[in-house]
Amino acid sequence: MILAIDAMGGDNAPQAVVDGALMALTSLGQDLTIWLFGDEGQLKACLQDKPYPADRLVIKPASEVISCEEAPATAVRRKKDASMVLAAKAVADGEADCFLSAGSTGAVLSCGTLIIRRIKGVQRPALAPLIPNIQGGHTMIIDAGANVDCKSAYLVQFAQMGSAYMELVEGVQEPVIGLLNNGEEAEKGNELTKETYPLLQELPGIRFGGNCEARELMSGDFDAVVTDGFAGNVLLKSTEGAAKAITSLLKTELMGSFRGTVGGAIAKPAFAALKKKMDYTEVGGAPLLGVNGGVIKAHGSSNAKSFFNAIRQAQKLVKGGVTEKIAQAVQEQEG
Amino acid sequence: MILAIDAMGGDNAPQAVVDGALMALTSLGQDLTIWLFGDEGQLKACLQDKPYPADRLVIKPASEVISCEEAPATAVRRKKDASMVLAAKAVADGEADCFLSAGSTGAVLSCGTLIIRRIKGVQRPALAPLIPNIQGGHTMIIDAGANVDCKSAYLVQFAQMGSAYMELVEGVQEPVIGLLNNGEEAEKGNELTKETYPLLQELPGIRFGGNCEARELMSGDFDAVVTDGFAGNVLLKSTEGAAKAITSLLKTELMGSFRGTVGGAIAKPAFAALKKKMDYTEVGGAPLLGVNGGVIKAHGSSNAKSFFNAIRQAQKLVKGGVTEKIAQAVQEQEG
Repeated sequence: MILAIDAMGGDNAPQAVVDGALMALTSLGQDLTIWLFGDEGQLKACLQDKPYPADRLVIKPASEVISCEEAPATAVRRKKDASMVLAAKAVADGEADCFLSAGSTGAVLSCGTLIIRRIKGVQRPALAPLIPNIQGGHTMIIDAGANVDCKSAYLVQFAQMGSAYMELVEGVQEPVIGLLNNGEEAEKGNELTKETYPLLQELPGIRFGGNCEARELMSGDFDAVVTDGFAGNVLLKSTEGAAKAITSLLKTELMGSFRGTVGGAIAKPAFAALKKKMDYTEVGGAPLLGVNGGVIKAHGSSNAKSFFNAIRQAQKLVKGGVTEKIAQAVQEQEG
Repeated sequence: MILAIDAMGGDNAPQAVVDGALMALTSLGQDLTIWLFGDEGQLKACLQDKPYPADRLVIKPASEVISCEEAPATAVRRKKDASMVLAAKAVADGEADCFLSAGSTGAVLSCGTLIIRRIKGVQRPALAPLIPNIQGGHTMIIDAGANVDCKSAYLVQFAQMGSAYMELVEGVQEPVIGLLNNGEEAEKGNELTKETYPLLQELPGIRFGGNCEARELMSGDFDAVVTDGFAGNVLLKSTEGAAKAITSLLKTELMGSFRGTVGGAIAKPAFAALKKKMDYTEVGGAPLLGVNGGVIKAHGSSNAKSFFNAIRQAQKLVKGGVTEKIAQAVQEQEG
C-alpha cells in the first residue's frame, strides 16, 4: 500500500509530517510505503540522523506549496508542481492508494474533486469529520462543509458513504445513520430534510435511525449524522467552540480561589483525561468520501502523533475498501 | 404594566409559575400587574396561605391546556379557552403588554403569529434565545427555529430585531451583529448567506460585524448572530449538547479515582459557579420578536426562579419599547 502525503501542509510541516510518517513505518506493518511530497532539501533535513527504511519512505520533490490564503480551486489548477497537487495526482494516476494533507481544507477538497475526481454515480463528495462521543466511540458528521447547498439526493449518498466508512474503518456493525434535524419527530424539518427523510427510510443497506437533534451528536446514539454542509459546519464548529468555552470557563473558576486552585491541581489528571478523550488528533483526520481513492484531510494543527493517526486511518480506509464499497452502493442504488 | 402569563405551561406548572410571579410582584416594582391564566382551582390552591397583592395578581380562569404533544397550530386554533390562547389574546387585544409561557414552543410561536400577529412590515417573527458567553454577557441567536427556510430579506429584519433587543433590554450600545457562516471571509457561505452579507453591510442603523463562525458564538465578540432557523436551531442545540457532554465527561473522570474524587470535591464550587454562569434560567426565556406585543417563551423546565427571571425580562422588554423600535426600524427600511 502506498500513501501519498503532502509533507508541506499544516502548521507544523514538514517536521511533524515526517515524524508521523516515521512512527507509522515503524509500527503499522511492512506493507506500508509512504511517499512524501515536498521541498527535497527541507525533507532531507527533517530526516537527517534518523534511521528509516529507504525502500518504504520515498521523497518526491515538489517545488511549490499551496497556502491557506490562496483561492483553493485556482491554486490547485495553477500550481502544477505543488506538494498537495502532486500527492493527489499520484492517487488519481493509480500509483498511490490514499492522499493525505494537513493543508488548506478548500485546497484538499479541490484536489479531491478536480484531480482525483468523483466516483462514477456520486453526485457530491463529502467531508466527514469524526467527533468523540460520550460512549467512547466516534460520531461522523457528513457533510461538514464541502457542499453548503444540498439536494436530498446528495444526502442519500452521504448516508451510504458514512455507513460504509463507519462499518469498514471504525468497525461498527450496521451503523446507525441519523438525519440532522430541528426535532426528533418525522414531520419536522426544513424543505431539504422533509424531502430526505422518506428517502432514507426506504434506502436499502442502511440502518436509518431517524432524525438526530444537534444536542444528540455526542450521545453516541448515532454513528453518522447526515446533513447539508452548511448546517454540518455549524454543528462541527459549535461543538468544538462550546467544548473549548466550557473548559476555559471551568479553568477560570478553578483558578479563582485558593481552594479552587488546590482542587484544580488535584483534579488535573481528570482534565488531562478529558482532553485525551476529546482529542481529535486521536482520530486522525476527516476523510473526503465519494472520490476515486482515499483522501484524508488532517487538522491544520496536526503534530507528529496526529499525523501518525491520520496515516493509520488512511491504512484502514484502504484496507477496508471504503472507496469500492461506496462505488458499489451507489451503483446498486442507481441500478 | 400588565403581563399575561400562561400559568399551565411547563414541567413545573402551575406551582413554579405562581411562585415566580409572587417573587416578581414583591421585588420588581409597584407598577407591575400579573394576570395568571389557568385552572382557577389549581391556581387558588397554589396561592393558598401565601399573602399577595390581590390588586396586582389576578387569576383569569381558563378551562383548557395545550400540551407539547399536540399539533401546535391546530391546537391554538381549536382550543379557544386554553390558558395559552387566552393569555396571548390579552396581548392581541391590547389589554396586556407581554405574554409569557413555558409551554410548547410550537404553540407559543403559533400564538404569536396567529393571535398577536406580525408587526406591519415584518416578514417573519423570529425566536431569539440568549446564550451566556465567556465575557459574562449574552449572545442572541436569531432565528433559532421559528423559520426553518429563510430568504435574505428575513435575515435582514432579524438583524434589526436582534439589534433593538440587545440595545433596549440588555443595554448594549451599538450591538455587534454577526451573520452565521461557514467561514469568516466575506465571500464564504451558502446561497442564502452570500445574498444576505451585502444587504447587512448596507443596512442603516446596524453595526454589522461580518461573518460569525459557529465556534465564535460563546466568544462574546458578537451580541447577536443572525441565521435561518434551521442552522440557528443546530447552533443552539449543539452548544447546549456539547456543554452538557463535556460537563458529564469531566464529572465521570473526576469520580474515576480517589485523587479525582477528592479533587472534584474541592473543585465543587468551581463547577457550581460554572453552572450558574451557563444557566439559562438566569436569562429568563427566549423572546419571539417581530410580533405586535411582547412574547417570552420560557424554558419548559423553568422553576420559580427562572420564571421570575422571565418576568423581569418581559418587564425590560416592555419598558424598553422593543416592539415599537422594531416597528420603526422596519418601516424606515421599507421607506
